[in-house]
Amino acid sequence: MEKKIKGVRVIGIDDAPFDKFKDKEVLVIGVVARNGKDKVIEGILSTKIEKDGRDANEKIINVIKNSKFVNQIKVIFLHGTTMGGLNLLNLNEIYKSLKIPVVGVLRRKPNIESVKKALIKAGKLKEANLLECEFEKLGKFYVKMVGIKKDELIDIFDIGLYTLRLAHLIGSGIMKGESKGRL
Amino acid sequence: MEKKIKGVRVIGIDDAPFDKFKDKEVLVIGVVARNGKDKVIEGILSTKIEKDGRDANEKIINVIKNSKFVNQIKVIFLHGTTMGGLNLLNLNEIYKSLKIPVVGVLRRKPNIESVKKALIKAGKLKEANLLECEFEKLGKFYVKMVGIKKDELIDIFDIGLYTLRLAHLIGSGIMKGESKGRL
Repeated sequence: MEKKIKGVRVIGIDDAPFDKFKDKEVLVIGVVARNGKDKVIEGILSTKIEKDGRDANEKIINVIKNSKFVNQIKVIFLHGTTMGGLNLLNLNEIYKSLKIPVVGVLRRKPNIESVKKALIKAGKLKEANLLECEFEKLGKFYVKMVGIKKDELIDIFDIGLYTLRLAHLIGSGIMKGESKGRL
Repeated sequence: MEKKIKGVRVIGIDDAPFDKFKDKEVLVIGVVARNGKDKVIEGILSTKIEKDGRDANEKIINVIKNSKFVNQIKVIFLHGTTMGGLNLLNLNEIYKSLKIPVVGVLRRKPNIESVKKALIKAGKLKEANLLECEFEKLGKFYVKMVGIKKDELIDIFDIGLYTLRLAHLIGSGIMKGESKGRL
């Protein structure tokens, strides 16, 4: 079992900071790493999504599908379940399309009602109804899991958080010149 | 001694891929990491330089000087001694300005004559004369050291190569959507 977990590759995906008023597109970054003592970083993927748009799901599916890592990635970690503002992710769809388990990770308890209100205000009624809201607590984090169970997740949660943190640092460093903050 | 080396922070700097004909600016990425078993990545810096311009040295000095890591970084690793095409780096100047040792690292033996010719062709006579050409072999690499000796470098060469590799992966992943190749 130990050996199995060690070789496991995961991807952590986060959006980069953006200007709410000026930017039309938002950079999304994926970090591929292999579990083990060294946490080897094997690759960086990126794509651009429309701010508050509807293309995040498709773009993320495609960037993974078209990458050389597609057959190696065992779990997809997402920072939250929205990217680039209100560009909603559908974890079930990603799982169905790629046949790779998907985990949305949040640092704080999600405020579902406030996101729903924002979606409705933006005319996204369909999305408001599809918003992911079943988060479970895992350590200090809140997770939404599709295609993977909590006891399977625990073993690779560290490497998942590592890739998410790095995706966050890269996004922040590229867009602002210096990385700030933490996942 | 072991302990001292463990805590040491270094930065590895590389330019991202660019289009020789279309791009006017080139993204430059710095990865700050702490030496030790875990090779903790502490931050990402970035700046933009003019393709074939003369601002690489100043921009790199400034991005380090203005970062929260400036007093912690013990060695600056550069992938080569030119960035963004023919935008020349002056390792002595960086060392003088920041008081941090600087190491230029190349995978292959540099073809000094061919770079000199390109510089002269581009009207950069001054730069052609200032081109770094004293590279020493270290393992499989060629290095130019300023402010640090070979025996001091050996202990932190691994973490330096790690940050350079990561800066390369990030640049490639951001500009091309997927990271390719190796340092």
